[in-house]
Amino acid sequence: MKLPERYFDEFVVGDTFETAPFTLSEKESMAFAHLYDPQPFHLDPEAAAASPFHELVASGWQTAAITMRLIVQSGVLRATGVIGTGIDDLRWLAPVLPGDTLRVRGEVVEKVPWPGKKERGTMRIRLQTVNQNDVVVMSQIANVMMRTRPS
Amino acid sequence: MKLPERYFDEFVVGDTFETAPFTLSEKESMAFAHLYDPQPFHLDPEAAAASPFHELVASGWQTAAITMRLIVQSGVLRATGVIGTGIDDLRWLAPVLPGDTLRVRGEVVEKVPWPGKKERGTMRIRLQTVNQNDVVVMSQIANVMMRTRPS
Repeated sequence: MKLPERYFDEFVVGDTFETAPFTLSEKESMAFAHLYDPQPFHLDPEAAAASPFHELVASGWQTAAITMRLIVQSGVLRATGVIGTGIDDLRWLAPVLPGDTLRVRGEVVEKVPWPGKKERGTMRIRLQTVNQNDVVVMSQIANVMMRTRPS
Repeated sequence: MKLPERYFDEFVVGDTFETAPFTLSEKESMAFAHLYDPQPFHLDPEAAAASPFHELVASGWQTAAITMRLIVQSGVLRATGVIGTGIDDLRWLAPVLPGDTLRVRGEVVEKVPWPGKKERGTMRIRLQTVNQNDVVVMSQIANVMMRTRPS
């Protein structure tokens, strides 16, 4: 079930969306950590027990990457592609544990036209990645480059 | 060659570091995109040619993940672990192409003690991820939780 295809000019501030959920396995958590964040509290249960987290946790960058995938898969921005120019105020607010089920809530908070370019704009979207207990594990403001609908 | 082990109280504002370089293969670029950013301009050369990038580019989130790995591997923060609480002003400034060689430059820009907790602090580090032509492809301010040296 895909969301309707929309362009920059067809979103309004206050628009919201929510993605499908995704459950992170321990295997996928460790595979990411091995490749991109090889720290003991992501890879070794004993070391994790002695860490500030007290248990195995997923890399925060994997949470960010899963958030991206869920948004791409939702189709909400497929008309123009999910092309981020930057992220503001990214915060990791709670640990993500292997076995957690994540989904993403989005809200358009600002639309910024490009000076002198009617066919483009930047949409600022507040993203909250939440777990199965409705705890926000990560929040951010994504700046996404968008096209207006081709005339 | 690892950098010396240092704690929160042993860094000063203005300290800099630089990581080893890493060359991103097309295979690794596509593997990440398949998993976390399945958009045509990351996966299909023909679609990429027709995209705003005009060629295959790596996912910006992979650049962020590689940046993390290079910092972890450098050892610069190994005394207390690389535990980020958040990121400010992340900007993707130039595309990363398969075949590019990335390295990371860091500079401590602020040290923020934790109220009422002498054994912890937050270090704000400006990170620039640069390619083989010295072009900054990604910049960010990382907020990293650190410990003071155990007495």
